[in-house]
Amino acid sequence: SKKKLKKGLFVTFEGPEGSGKTTHCRAIYGWLRNRGYDCVLVREPGGTAIGEKMRDLLLDRRNKGISPRVELFLFETSRCQLVQEIIVPALKKKKIVLCDRFTDSTVAYQGYAGNMPIDDVTRMNDIATGGLKPDVTILLDIDPAAGMERRAKEQKRDRIELKSMRFHHMVRRGYLEQARRDKRRIRVVRASGEIEMTYKLVEMEIKDSLKAYGG
Amino acid sequence: SKKKLKKGLFVTFEGPEGSGKTTHCRAIYGWLRNRGYDCVLVREPGGTAIGEKMRDLLLDRRNKGISPRVELFLFETSRCQLVQEIIVPALKKKKIVLCDRFTDSTVAYQGYAGNMPIDDVTRMNDIATGGLKPDVTILLDIDPAAGMERRAKEQKRDRIELKSMRFHHMVRRGYLEQARRDKRRIRVVRASGEIEMTYKLVEMEIKDSLKAYGG
Repeated sequence: SKKKLKKGLFVTFEGPEGSGKTTHCRAIYGWLRNRGYDCVLVREPGGTAIGEKMRDLLLDRRNKGISPRVELFLFETSRCQLVQEIIVPALKKKKIVLCDRFTDSTVAYQGYAGNMPIDDVTRMNDIATGGLKPDVTILLDIDPAAGMERRAKEQKRDRIELKSMRFHHMVRRGYLEQARRDKRRIRVVRASGEIEMTYKLVEMEIKDSLKAYGG
Repeated sequence: SKKKLKKGLFVTFEGPEGSGKTTHCRAIYGWLRNRGYDCVLVREPGGTAIGEKMRDLLLDRRNKGISPRVELFLFETSRCQLVQEIIVPALKKKKIVLCDRFTDSTVAYQGYAGNMPIDDVTRMNDIATGGLKPDVTILLDIDPAAGMERRAKEQKRDRIELKSMRFHHMVRRGYLEQARRDKRRIRVVRASGEIEMTYKLVEMEIKDSLKAYGG
């Protein structure tokens, strides 16, 4: 029999490239399941039939010249469907939902680092989510140079990595400004140390949240 | 050699099902081209590679259960791409752009008749268009019962037609309230009479607009 929380718990994982966000998100998912929690892991963009179509279009963008504005709409369309089809129903069933990237990514990447007005991005986020906010956000913070270095070692150079260092500094600033404004929700975890150490810090944050939700 | 206007002219055609909107829009397109105007005809949703993908998803919705909120995002994504890829470049070349449905449709259908807050729809419209507004909008106004009757004669029953009469009355109210607030842009043309008569009224409005743009 599954462990039940008093109510659904919605946790998002945020951070720049090379912060280990996806690794830690997956590790926490395994840890929660091993402990008997009813848990759902999703990623953005994607996670639904419509979301995967949006994801394909976003990955195609090098060929088709999708503008930052259209990119924002594709991300938000994917998010809107994901929230309604997967996240809200799971939370209603008192499950734990882990989401690899969510609204804070859009504010950081398309808003602070991209050229879209932050006010527009925030409004689009609110409409796409119907006002749903994460209960807890794990923000894995790392200096862009260190993140890039880690990525280079992994030999996973991709489109995002090729953006200028200035872009990555703006992403980080965007994340940290959001964290400063919403200290209760966003837990900043230093991700520049050893990966095991960072994981322990993430696990501590998750344990704290579980306690608050009766887990 | 093509007739040139002083600047681009952006005309949208709006109206409920059975108002003859698409027929008149196409007729005006032919009339303008015959007179030597450089003219582009587009429709929503669609008109670009991304827009056509959004259109396919919208038409699929009976099967996939797309919510009104996601529907709004799909319309706006299609619009965003259409504006940037087709409409703005054509207007910069001083062409005439005719668009079969645009932002007023979204306010009427998803806002007034659907369940989306009008303020959200308006904001999404502004973000998708980057603030671009039609110079002239031809609103073909018809009582929903008369529109439905005309459609029934044409034996073109479709998904929209099957919505309740209350829905269609709300659409009309949504259109007329927008027209009242923006009398300069939105020209209400009575569409309940003979189609030739309605066409003449539409043509008069277009002639007036051409004069103002040096045509």
